[in-house]
Parts: sequence; structure tokens; C-alpha cells
Amino acid sequence: MTYQAPIRDIMFNIEHLSGWPQVTSLGVYSDIDQTDAQAALEGFGRFCEDVIAPLSTIGDETGAQFNGTQVVMPQPYEQAYGQFVEMGWQSLSHPTEFGGMGLPRVVGAAATEMLNAADMSFGLCPLLTDGASHALLITGSEDQKKRYLEPLITGQWSGTMNLTEPQAGSDLGRVRTKAEPQSDGSFAVSGTKIFITFGEHDLSENIVHLVLARTPGAPAGPKGLSLFIVPKYLVQDDGSLGDRNAVTCVSIEHKLGVRASPTAVLDYDKAKGFLIGEENRGLEYMFVMMTSARFSVGVQGIAVSDRAYQHAVTYAQERQQSRPVDGSSKDAVPIVQHPDVRRMLLRMRALTEGGRALAATTAGWLDIAHNGVEDYRRDADAMAEFLVPLVKGYCTERSVEVTSLGVQVHGGMGFIEETGVAQFYRDSRILPIYEGTTAIQANDLLGRKVMRDNGDTARRFSGMVQETVEELRKGSAKAKGIADRLSEARDLFETSLAWLLDTARRDPNAAFAGGVPFLMLSGNLATAWQLGRSAVIAEAKLAQGEDVEFMSQKVATAQFYAHHILVECHAECARILQGSPSLFDDGIQL
Amino acid sequence: MTYQAPIRDIMFNIEHLSGWPQVTSLGVYSDIDQTDAQAALEGFGRFCEDVIAPLSTIGDETGAQFNGTQVVMPQPYEQAYGQFVEMGWQSLSHPTEFGGMGLPRVVGAAATEMLNAADMSFGLCPLLTDGASHALLITGSEDQKKRYLEPLITGQWSGTMNLTEPQAGSDLGRVRTKAEPQSDGSFAVSGTKIFITFGEHDLSENIVHLVLARTPGAPAGPKGLSLFIVPKYLVQDDGSLGDRNAVTCVSIEHKLGVRASPTAVLDYDKAKGFLIGEENRGLEYMFVMMTSARFSVGVQGIAVSDRAYQHAVTYAQERQQSRPVDGSSKDAVPIVQHPDVRRMLLRMRALTEGGRALAATTAGWLDIAHNGVEDYRRDADAMAEFLVPLVKGYCTERSVEVTSLGVQVHGGMGFIEETGVAQFYRDSRILPIYEGTTAIQANDLLGRKVMRDNGDTARRFSGMVQETVEELRKGSAKAKGIADRLSEARDLFETSLAWLLDTARRDPNAAFAGGVPFLMLSGNLATAWQLGRSAVIAEAKLAQGEDVEFMSQKVATAQFYAHHILVECHAECARILQGSPSLFDDGIQL
Repeated sequence: MTYQAPIRDIMFNIEHLSGWPQVTSLGVYSDIDQTDAQAALEGFGRFCEDVIAPLSTIGDETGAQFNGTQVVMPQPYEQAYGQFVEMGWQSLSHPTEFGGMGLPRVVGAAATEMLNAADMSFGLCPLLTDGASHALLITGSEDQKKRYLEPLITGQWSGTMNLTEPQAGSDLGRVRTKAEPQSDGSFAVSGTKIFITFGEHDLSENIVHLVLARTPGAPAGPKGLSLFIVPKYLVQDDGSLGDRNAVTCVSIEHKLGVRASPTAVLDYDKAKGFLIGEENRGLEYMFVMMTSARFSVGVQGIAVSDRAYQHAVTYAQERQQSRPVDGSSKDAVPIVQHPDVRRMLLRMRALTEGGRALAATTAGWLDIAHNGVEDYRRDADAMAEFLVPLVKGYCTERSVEVTSLGVQVHGGMGFIEETGVAQFYRDSRILPIYEGTTAIQANDLLGRKVMRDNGDTARRFSGMVQETVEELRKGSAKAKGIADRLSEARDLFETSLAWLLDTARRDPNAAFAGGVPFLMLSGNLATAWQLGRSAVIAEAKLAQGEDVEFMSQKVATAQFYAHHILVECHAECARILQGSPSLFDDGIQL
Repeated sequence: MTYQAPIRDIMFNIEHLSGWPQVTSLGVYSDIDQTDAQAALEGFGRFCEDVIAPLSTIGDETGAQFNGTQVVMPQPYEQAYGQFVEMGWQSLSHPTEFGGMGLPRVVGAAATEMLNAADMSFGLCPLLTDGASHALLITGSEDQKKRYLEPLITGQWSGTMNLTEPQAGSDLGRVRTKAEPQSDGSFAVSGTKIFITFGEHDLSENIVHLVLARTPGAPAGPKGLSLFIVPKYLVQDDGSLGDRNAVTCVSIEHKLGVRASPTAVLDYDKAKGFLIGEENRGLEYMFVMMTSARFSVGVQGIAVSDRAYQHAVTYAQERQQSRPVDGSSKDAVPIVQHPDVRRMLLRMRALTEGGRALAATTAGWLDIAHNGVEDYRRDADAMAEFLVPLVKGYCTERSVEVTSLGVQVHGGMGFIEETGVAQFYRDSRILPIYEGTTAIQANDLLGRKVMRDNGDTARRFSGMVQETVEELRKGSAKAKGIADRLSEARDLFETSLAWLLDTARRDPNAAFAGGVPFLMLSGNLATAWQLGRSAVIAEAKLAQGEDVEFMSQKVATAQFYAHHILVECHAECARILQGSPSLFDDGIQL
């Protein structure tokens, strides 16, 4: 199935939404210009179109297979992974000192989107490797970085995150895997980990497992967890591979989607592990990495949405059925002309482009947060931390909706697997679950990102939205219409925020009952804000006669978003303010 | 996977919402009392729990198989179908004069729900047979009824509807299948039909295909279609089976869900067909039957929602994870105690019970419409015709949401096929598509049910909602809260209705752009209305101390619905009134 990398839209976001001037004023990115970024993304886009996109059907049909000891990937995946590594794509946004290309997250996020649009199953392997690389970069010792980081950054080796156990999913405090100290300074890691994405496979030469486990005498609960490197093959001092470590794949899951991504049950039987950082700080280290991984999962949502949209709009242009309701033709017309098909397609497009715009601006804050100077860095970090649960929670929930609309546009053909669009619907369904469910994102947003600073960051966000409202008010009638909707939604956000801050400590159940509604309201507003910023820029370009075709579609997308999607904030606010008694009144039985 | 037939809720609806006194005052149902109805439903409920529910996993895993000439059903289906026929369940709501049990639709709808909750794939065969029986009952000749109706009503034979062709889906005017008159009065039917549910299988002795085709010289478009009986085996005058007819199964589809329901491509090669009624009135006859079939598909949505809810609530009671946010325990608690899990479960329950209540009241109108005395019959028919697209459109769209929430409640386990809840998510996805997509339902609602009588029926509906608002205002604080939300939503309905009536003829594109939003608004309001009626009755029972446990849950469900779901009407109204320019403004390219 064909895929077209959305380079034009990506570059618009990088240029106008991501804070590119600030990002490239950071020392580490000062020698990068937009031409470099565009060249890299165009090259990678072609690779995704030509090499990765054809995998998705094969991967879905064949799936990763477990032969009792090993996971065997569909054959074309091996070849494609080899090319991916050889061309250096894994290293795109990693630091040059460890062999990376050194591009900012703003560019890396766009690459992640394209790779996952082409095939989410394939995309998961590099995504996890990126996560392990980030963790080692931030928390690993010099020796650990030397030994493991470069081959991870090239993609020669892949990485995994081993958190979940049967009794410990969202609740990592219940992790039981043990790590016993050995005389040589290593640890013997024993336990069973489940849901380990790419936990076993034959694409890379080695797999670096990052494993949460408990040392003897560690405190109970989340504060007694330590993080260990457990390589599939032990790594010798010269970097060459030594003995096979005592970590084995017991089985892989039979899943609704992403079927070529092996989800492994791993058994650790006194496997040799190496402590990262200090004992009992494992969860803290994981959280550092999690922000980045959650952001990437949000981007996967945008990716699969775009893939579904591209298929739906192509089908709707080709499929002829029924006369138009306005009587403009006596013959059947392409269904793209029918009002409800337009509504569905524009909804898919607005949610996809809106998500992409939100991810681009968030990536910019992440870049500044990781590389900026102190005061500005701290502010950027707070904003990034506020936005990441929105990218993860909102964009993945919406991806389920967008891929469902993709099925609907195809009518009966959408339900037939060979059409291919049902796969996007199945693949997307994991996104609001893994790397923390939507409720976990909402708890993070409300508990850590809003309550902890007493709403300061949330109000700063709201203030920035207001600036965009004022810019839009100076524009066309369409822009003024967008401003009105955006201003209404901002009021609903502020009302909800005030209520939640007032209620949270007094009645936590009532406040957290509004957690997901608040996440959806905030995500909706944040997305509309970015499309509002886009519309301001697009109208300025249109006034200059620049790139008329693209810019007029940008305004149209923002307009649709405001009138069809942003209006849902009303319901979210009502749920927050008045909905909690219906969850907790006496006598409700579930 | 276990299933519990929701007899208590079904009987509440039959007793209080369905118009039971009016239905049983109809001559044809005058000797039926609630005890009979309950006994029949309890018996059938046990059958669904014990015999049908265990099929769903087997059916999903094995699927219907095509061996090149025949469809082979998973073996346990044959046995179950045999029992189903033997016990007489197919005949439940068919007239006694043709061997039926003669129970009203109000009871039949509940049976349809239970059967499809137990297994949607199995349920489709009787559903289509019911459709064919209804068509023959209304439009068949005496000889046709004698020859085909009784074995259909017993389930000894099954029925199909053959409408779709590759180029003719929603647009039946494009049907090309030909029917050439023969010297013996029969027709030679030739063409290819696709998406034929249970078009070929080995469960029943014969299959009665109802086929839309075009006679020589018939007008082009929808007004040139005639309806034919094409039996798989020709039926001799004594009722015994004769030669195999020239209709063959070419292939079956590989589908996202309902995999044990064979979806056939049928090739008609001068197959012997028998005209039903008059030539060129085929589509009109189909429409008579379609109302009934669409209602049943809506009920399938309620069915699969209930199945998903039952699984989710059971899992949430058992799965322990994380401490409660209110600090009431230092240990992990069952996840049903966490606010967002409660929110998801109550949402699933409110949408399911709400849909069931709406279906029960609609079934009552259908019974009166088909069997009442003239004036009252005509009013009931108008109300039923208004409500059926809501049952079909709203309840099936919601079933996709409910089954998705069912996956979410299960977290990572929901994505593993063996858990079983992913199947409901896959199965449900066909419901907003077949028997007319949601957009087709919306066109029917707006074009035929609202515009044609200039909004009279819609206003009558709104008036009945207002009566419930006033009843609720006499109740508890909870009831008054429900009344406030219901009254707001009713205002939004009236505002939307007035705008649509004003706009539709002047600017059909603008009006039909609001078609699905209006359907969702109306469906939401209609559902809340029925739960509001339920709350009024439940509060009266509670005041008498009757059935406290059940009645207090009824009020809780209505309260949740009002504050979490009904509030979505605001967005639908905004979309209708202000959303259309963003679909049709100059320069929007799709």
C-alpha cells in the first residue's frame, strides 16, 4: 500500500511552529539549517515510502513467528532493517559524539512519524532502541555509554524496556523481579517480564534489555526498584559479543494489531545484569526516559492517522456512488463530493494535521528543555512536561477515532482485510494503552503537571493560547470565527482548571474523575491553538500570494477543527464540573 | 466466554417503556401476558448463555471456511443451529398462522439482543431469515407464502438479501443483475452479488435468496428494480426440494470481524427466479423490510455493547492494581475503584442500557404500526420510522465506542486476542456500515423522516421529551439534575431542527453536512429521554421500597448518562449550525 511522506506539512511546522530559531540558537544545533533538515527528511521520507511502507501488509499477514526458542521476523523485515541501519537512519537525532547525526528532536519527531506511518510494527523497534539510548545517555556510566551506546545509536543493536510483570502493569511498585549482587560487581537478574516489545528477534546482532528489578533488602513499592542493563549477548571489553546471557523468550503474544512487532514474555534466570546509576532510583530514571517515549507514542498516533487518511481520501476520490444531494449531477459522483464523506475526511485531516502541529511545537520545547540555558530551560521543561501527556493521551485516543473513520469512508470494503484499512484500525488500538494508558496520562497531567505547580504552567499555556486568539482577531472572517471558538474553549479550560485545583486536595476522587475529560479538553485546546497559529501564518502568506494552494488548505483545516472538533470542549467541561457525583454517589454498584 | 442474559433490565423495559398495555391491546397480541413473555425470554436467555455464547470464540478462531464450492461452518455451529430450530426460537415473533409463536416485536427485539450478544456471527443467520420472512409476509403471493414462509419461520431454511453488487453499494440504482422472463412464468436471473451474509452455508436445508434484479426494458435507476425469490434448491409443489439452482458461491470474504458469518460472493447464471409482487417495485418492497432489518442491526449494537460491558466489569472487579487516589487504602485495590475505570464502565453501561431502552420503546411503536387501528397506526408508524434510523445509526456508532472502552478497561490484556474483548471491538465495526451506513441513516432521517412531514413527527417526539422533563422535575435532586440536562438537549434539538428545515431546500449541501450530527444529537436525546422515563419510574418504585437495588442503579445510570453523554449534544448543534461552511467553502480540496 502506498504512502506519501507529508514533507510540505512537516516543513511548515518546523519552520513556523516548532520554535526553530530558538532551537537552532542552542549551541548543540547551531550549525544546522532548515535545508539540512529538509534534505534529511526528504531522504528518509523516500526510504519510508519505498522500503518500509510495502512491509506493513506482509507484516500484518505473516506476523512475527515464535518457533519455540526464537522469534522469526517476516523475511523482508530483515532486509529493510539492514538498509535502515546501513543508511544511518537510527542515528538521526542522537548526539554526534556517540556517532549520531545530531539533528534536533523537532526533526527526529517528523522522522518518527514517517517511519510509523509506513509501518507501525517496524517503527516500534527503532522507537524502543531510541528509548534505551536516551536512558543510557542520561543515566549510564562512562563505561556503559562506551560499551552499549554507539551500537544502539547506529541500530546495529536494538534496545528494550522491561517494566511490566503479570501483577505489575500500571502499578510498577508491584514489580518482583530480583537482582542479586555478584562478586564481580554484576547482578543476577531473575524473574518474568511480559509485554516486552521486540524483546526477542533476529533483526539486530544484540539486544540491550533495560530491566526494572529489586535488590535484596530494597524498600517495598516503587522506591525499591533499580534499573539494570541485561544484554542478550554479553559484551566483552573490546566491544565484541561474548556468551549468550540467561534471558530467554518463552512466548510471544497473539495480538489485535502491530502483528509484526514481537511482544515477548521474557524469562530471566540469573541473567547477568549491570546496575545503571544508583540502587533504588530505577523508577526515577525510567521517568526521565518515559517523557521521551510517551511523546514518541503520541507521534505514532499521528502517523497511523495520516496513513488512514491518505487511504480514505484516495478511495473517496475514486469510488463513484449516488447522485449529489444538491442536484448538481444526474449521475453518480465520486463519494468525496457527498457532504458526510467530506465531513469524515476533513475530520480525519484536521485531527492528523492538528496532532502533527502539536507534536512539532512540543518537540521544540523538548529540544530547549534538554539543551537550553538554565532559566529558559526550566520553563521549557515545564511546558514540555505539560504538553507531552497531551500528545500521548490526546493524539492516541484520536488515532483510534481517525482510523475508525477510515474504515467508515470505505463502507463495506473497509471491513474486508485485503483493503488494508482495517489494519490501521487494529494497529492504532494499542496506542492509548502502552507507555501508560490514557488514564495514567491524565493522572500525570493533573497530579504532576498541574497540581504540583498549582496551575502555573497551565495558566502560562492558557496565556499563550490567548495571544493566538488576539492574532486571529486581526485576520479574515474565517480567522475571527476560529478565534471565537478558541476563546470559548480557553474559557472552558480555565473554568475546569480552577475547579480542579480547588477540588483536588479536598476530594481527590471527584478531581481525578475529571482527569481524562481534562486531558481531552486540554489536548483539544492545545491542538486548536497550534492550528490557530498555523492559520495566522497562512493568512499572512496568502496576503503575499505565497504558496496559495497549501496555505488556503491550512486555513480550511483550522476552520474545520474549530467548528467541528474544538466544540467538544463544552462536554468535557460539563463532565468535569458536574459529572463526578454520578461516579461516586452512594449506592452506585459496579 | 460467559454471558448473562439481562432479563431483569429487559423486563423493566417491556413493562415500563415499550407501551406494553397498548401493544397487548392489539387484537393479535391480546392473549399474551407478561408472564408468557418473561418465560419465553428466560428460556431463550438460558439457551443463549449455554449453547450460543460458547460459540463466539470458536467461530472467531476458525471462521467460516470456503472449500472452493461450499462454505463449511465450524462444527459446533451446526449442532447449535439444529437445537435453535428444534426448540422453535426462530419462530418467536412470527405470526401463528404460519407456524410462529406470535409474540410481539417488543419481545422479539429482546431475543435478538440476547442471541447477538451471545454471538453476533450466529445471530446474523436468523436475522437475515427474519428479514426474508418479513418481506414474503408483506409482499409475497399466497402461493409464495405457502411454499417458502413456513420453513423460513421455523428456521429449517434460511434467507438472504441480495442487494449489493461491486458497483452498487449504497447506490442501488446501479444494480445490473438481469432477470429474463421464461415461458413457464419464472425468470432467468444472471449477475454477481457481493457481501451476501450467510449467502452459502450448510446449516439449513435450503436457502431462500431475495434478489434485486432488472427485467428487460425496465427503467434505469432505482425505479427499474424488481425483487425475486431465487431458492438454492428449487421447491416442488409438495414442498420437497428439487434441483440445485444455478446460484453458486464464488468466494467468501476475509473480514475484520464476525468471522463465522460467511459473507459470500454469489454468481447467478440463469438461475430460476420468481417475481415477488409487481415488476419495478422491488426497491419499494425492500424498504418495507429494511426498516425492520435496520432496527435489528441497531439491536446488534446494543448486544455487542452489553457483552463487552459484562467482560469489562468482571475484569475490573478482579484485577488489582495501584492504591486509590483518595488514600483510603495503602494496598493496591481492584481497578473498579479507580475514578477513570468507573467512568469508563459507567459510560459503557449507560450507553448499553440507554440503547436497550430506546430499542424497547421503538419496538412498541413498530408493533402498533404493524397491527394497530388506522389513525393510531399511522401515528405510530411515523414515530417508529423516525426512531428506527436512530436505533440503527446511534446505537451502532456507540457500540464501536463501547467495545473500544472494553478493550481500554483491560489495558494491555485487551490487545491480546485470547482475552476475547478485541473480538467485540472487531465484530462491532461492521454495524455502522451494513444495512445502510450511518450517513445513509442520517439521510433517511433528515430527508424522509423530518423534511417530508415538515418536522411534524420530530416536534411530536420533542413534545414527548418535554413531558418527561416535567415528570423528572417533580422528583429528587438527582431527577431534577437529569431534567436540566434533558431540557438543554431538547432546546439544542429544536434549534437544530428549525435550522435544518429552514436550510434544507435552500442549501441541501449545508443541511446534509449536518445530517450525521443531527442523527447523533437526536439519538442521544432519544436515549436520554428513555433513561429519564426509567428514572421517573424507578424513583416511584424506590418511594415504595420496591426492588431497591435494581431501581437505584437505574437512577444512577440515567444520572451518569445525563451528565456525561447527553452533554455532547452541544457540539452536535454547533456542528450543524456553524460547521457546514468548513466543508464547502471555495477552495477546500480533498
